[in-house]
Amino acid sequence: MKLLEAINDPAQLRQLAPEQLVPLAHELRQFLLDSVSRTGGHLSSNLGTVELTIALHYVFDTPRDRLVWDVGHQTYPHKILTGRRARMHTLRQANGLSGFPRRDESRYDTFGTAHSSTSVSAALGMARAARLKGENHKTVAVIGDGAMSAGMAFEALNNAGVAHDLDLLVVLNDNDMSISPPVGALNRYLARLMSGRFHAAARNVGRTVLPAPVVELARRLEGHAKGMVAPPATLFEEFGFNYIGPIDGHDLDALVPTLQNIRALHGPQFLHVVTRKGCGYELAEADPILYHGTGKFNPSVGIVPAPGRTTYTEVFGDWLCDMAAADRRLVGITPAMREGSGMVRFAQQFPERYADVGIAEQHAVTFGAGLATEGMKPVVAIYSTFLQRAYDQLVHDVALQNLDVTFALDRAGLVGPDGATHAGNYDVAYMRCLPNLVLMAASDENECRRMLTTAFHYPGPAAVRYPRGAGPGVAIGHELSSIEIGTAEVRRRGEGIAILAFGSMVAPSVAAGAELGATVVNMRFVKPLDVALVTRLAREHARLVTVEEGSVMGGAGAAVAEALAAAGLTRPLLMLGLPDRFIQHGERAALLADLGLDAGGIVASIRQRFGTQEPRLAVSNG
Amino acid sequence: MKLLEAINDPAQLRQLAPEQLVPLAHELRQFLLDSVSRTGGHLSSNLGTVELTIALHYVFDTPRDRLVWDVGHQTYPHKILTGRRARMHTLRQANGLSGFPRRDESRYDTFGTAHSSTSVSAALGMARAARLKGENHKTVAVIGDGAMSAGMAFEALNNAGVAHDLDLLVVLNDNDMSISPPVGALNRYLARLMSGRFHAAARNVGRTVLPAPVVELARRLEGHAKGMVAPPATLFEEFGFNYIGPIDGHDLDALVPTLQNIRALHGPQFLHVVTRKGCGYELAEADPILYHGTGKFNPSVGIVPAPGRTTYTEVFGDWLCDMAAADRRLVGITPAMREGSGMVRFAQQFPERYADVGIAEQHAVTFGAGLATEGMKPVVAIYSTFLQRAYDQLVHDVALQNLDVTFALDRAGLVGPDGATHAGNYDVAYMRCLPNLVLMAASDENECRRMLTTAFHYPGPAAVRYPRGAGPGVAIGHELSSIEIGTAEVRRRGEGIAILAFGSMVAPSVAAGAELGATVVNMRFVKPLDVALVTRLAREHARLVTVEEGSVMGGAGAAVAEALAAAGLTRPLLMLGLPDRFIQHGERAALLADLGLDAGGIVASIRQRFGTQEPRLAVSNG
Repeated sequence: MKLLEAINDPAQLRQLAPEQLVPLAHELRQFLLDSVSRTGGHLSSNLGTVELTIALHYVFDTPRDRLVWDVGHQTYPHKILTGRRARMHTLRQANGLSGFPRRDESRYDTFGTAHSSTSVSAALGMARAARLKGENHKTVAVIGDGAMSAGMAFEALNNAGVAHDLDLLVVLNDNDMSISPPVGALNRYLARLMSGRFHAAARNVGRTVLPAPVVELARRLEGHAKGMVAPPATLFEEFGFNYIGPIDGHDLDALVPTLQNIRALHGPQFLHVVTRKGCGYELAEADPILYHGTGKFNPSVGIVPAPGRTTYTEVFGDWLCDMAAADRRLVGITPAMREGSGMVRFAQQFPERYADVGIAEQHAVTFGAGLATEGMKPVVAIYSTFLQRAYDQLVHDVALQNLDVTFALDRAGLVGPDGATHAGNYDVAYMRCLPNLVLMAASDENECRRMLTTAFHYPGPAAVRYPRGAGPGVAIGHELSSIEIGTAEVRRRGEGIAILAFGSMVAPSVAAGAELGATVVNMRFVKPLDVALVTRLAREHARLVTVEEGSVMGGAGAAVAEALAAAGLTRPLLMLGLPDRFIQHGERAALLADLGLDAGGIVASIRQRFGTQEPRLAVSNG
Repeated sequence: MKLLEAINDPAQLRQLAPEQLVPLAHELRQFLLDSVSRTGGHLSSNLGTVELTIALHYVFDTPRDRLVWDVGHQTYPHKILTGRRARMHTLRQANGLSGFPRRDESRYDTFGTAHSSTSVSAALGMARAARLKGENHKTVAVIGDGAMSAGMAFEALNNAGVAHDLDLLVVLNDNDMSISPPVGALNRYLARLMSGRFHAAARNVGRTVLPAPVVELARRLEGHAKGMVAPPATLFEEFGFNYIGPIDGHDLDALVPTLQNIRALHGPQFLHVVTRKGCGYELAEADPILYHGTGKFNPSVGIVPAPGRTTYTEVFGDWLCDMAAADRRLVGITPAMREGSGMVRFAQQFPERYADVGIAEQHAVTFGAGLATEGMKPVVAIYSTFLQRAYDQLVHDVALQNLDVTFALDRAGLVGPDGATHAGNYDVAYMRCLPNLVLMAASDENECRRMLTTAFHYPGPAAVRYPRGAGPGVAIGHELSSIEIGTAEVRRRGEGIAILAFGSMVAPSVAAGAELGATVVNMRFVKPLDVALVTRLAREHARLVTVEEGSVMGGAGAAVAEALAAAGLTRPLLMLGLPDRFIQHGERAALLADLGLDAGGIVASIRQRFGTQEPRLAVSNG
């Protein structure tokens, strides 16, 4: 690690002789594997960007030249080379390094990313700013082929290609892989382009700075693109870019001179780089999806699947297969999250009714709406945080037309190590204002299954939110039974205080209620709220408490406050949930405890607000 | 009108001989001009789709074959031909025909549209449903070139092009025009494609069903595309479509046989049709933007600009120019709404700092975020309803990074004749849950200007919402003065009842307060709420009322309820605002009155809730 240990800043990297870069890459890759296997985190994507990262920092004058990494889970090499090597052991832990670029973590992180496909837009903004300020530095966006399938990337390219006065480089990191395998026309096009270019590379001499094609990569790609002819002008050239590539993203002897040549050019440049996810670690190369995001593991053994407690994602996956078997109208839709959303078995058993639309949340939702108009019953499996990308489609295409689309909202609430970018804290606020929509929050695994069934049978738009990871461990039935719409469930009868808990907060609230002698209700429905029960509880209890894993502002507690106001009831109301700030990464249970959203915290908050004395007997409003 | 009057159903249209279609088009165009000049509505786009609409219904077996119109403001000919001719005089009026397709209005309206770029996604869902159900009808999406610049359309094409088992036709209605003039690489590509094709049409014989090129159109396009060479494979072919065109969208002798040929084909088809907005009405052809959306006018005279009361849009436009002159860091961004957002003068005076990104709300916001990272001060002018399209970018790219982006939210609240699809009723709910964000609601024109200045100077994300149309008529200052963040303004001191009004509801609330002897506050800030004032008012008044032009669920009233709960205050609280249903089209003031959101309605609601007796004196909480 002699070379790597001497680099605490890219300026030091730029002192190295070109022939030292390959040994440096070797050290960096080894460090990465050691580090991630100890902390957990993203592996495959980072093994794929080792050489590209070295080359970019070697050629470009970072941080003066701006570097924007799309998605950002491939930035560990970047972090290691930009002064954060010694803190890599804190990765994704509370108060440690983020798993994504963050502007407040380093001046080399020019733009915080995590959600896909934002880099070209942000980089174009930076390049435009440089132009307006009369500065002459360069701006580089690095974007994967998976991220290119999102409409946002297209919007940005559509604007960037005509910006001939800006010095912008878009590096397409083409690894033929988003998290799930690639889908869609663009990806087929890239494969064809790649193969065609390798066959016809000679044609390009003189008009690009293309280094010699890489025989190994060509061989790998030849198979599935044979017989196809590369077009003389690429799609990216049609868009106004100077297209260069494809080149081998693991060959520093190709990368460095190519980037040096490009750096001298003006106007929008497009460099097509081909990398392999997991490169250099045999097990990850063989199964890049398994090694996409890992826990701790022994690198010499590899990941050993250990059966854990059933996750909500698995509950959804099993339900989806069971419901699909029971109802031929079900179509399962995922925006490139087959594994993350638990749809691997469904995709195998029901390939005709499985749709992975790529990283394209907007299309996913409106495609579902189109299916629903014809009497199909689409189920859109989507993380809470990613439904933000399809909010208008939810409002305008689904809710407004009252179409029968079911939303399975995974990762609702805090997500732990992925941090603020991935947290699903706002879905209650942004969904419950929408007419026609039914919104449920699952308090345990079996209820999640029942709620999914309820949502599926409901003839309009309905969503079930459930948290990341495992639930309280309740036995899961095999039946497909529903819950009556808008009905809450009293879990515990007490006096003086009624705790109205939503979803993941029911279990700690029940424990808190036992300690306090309070009534505890599993509210189940954020919308429609069980107003009859809320008003009855308000009449029977002197004090009310709401608890939710979501933004207090505009959240489920606010729904209770609205219901009380509408009923003309005035009661002291304590609203517990996520505060008005972004919550950073860390272990999910620890974060919840820090925020007072475990049983002890709920008890403490209630005692602090309502005093430590035993709650008074209920008062009647008559 | 003999031909047109006999058609109450497309089946009757299909009885006509081909040679009757041109006279029918003439009648239809005349009817359209007469009708729209009496009701107001969209004109240019509908004059452009007369022949295309006739041809589609003539060739396809609607409604069995599914027809999806993107955006939908070009569907008046479609409405006239599908049994709604006699109701066209009710267009965009309360209880009358919608200005957009609506599933509940006609079985020929297969999918409700209004926001751009949803049609291909919806049509692909329908086509997939047909395949799954074993039905063999066709599905057609008609999408404009402007709508193609939105990422959502790209996402859909990326999925549709590989769906070789589906019978889907995408008709590109290329009129070289969204509402504002076109921008971006795609549009340049289309122009090049069109010109190249016209020059090289002979090459295509045999592999497409291309009719003879149209000399007039070629001439029109030749100028700005001269010297460019058409690529041998179009972008759409690269995406997997069978590309046909371009053909003249006003030539029924070309349209009908081409569509007949296409109808016999299987797999994804792409027909490129060239039309002229305003076609057949000289004044609209000369200025399609002026005639895009019109009020009533005399067709023989044309639109006579009549100076009316200053609109909020104009207030914004003037402010933008003044602030740009005062601060060189200002960059004005619009997603294809230069006219609608009042940016025409700004675009002329500050072309370097003006960015029309096309219909690309997602890119608009993150492009702004990129500018902000470099110390520029972007102002994103966007309708409330269209910010829904960029919600994730607002959350993930702007709010999370606390970047200095100003949002000018036009058309917040009800929009009147455009109806539910365009209403901006949810911005308060979906924005106020976001940390770091400042959200203001303007109560009059001058305050709007001051709030824009306040938002601009605030060093983080800040938004000003203002309604469609004119305000109460307050004189507008020339200075660029700010309001202290988070401070409300007592407009009227009364007793017993305090009315907390937001934005457009301040004026009617002041009138209501005068009648009731109530205190009235212009809250100004939805976030941060003036909690000190709210709690003081709660202590000084027995009853509180909130009034807002936005969803009550999760809205500004809910923010007041949250503040009261947090302060441990219990007061009867009446929350007035928009109810939990979508509000249909009609005249905005009449709709507000219907909903009890005028002065009389506010008085009535307060009396109904709190009784008709004079409010009691304020009580003190000590």
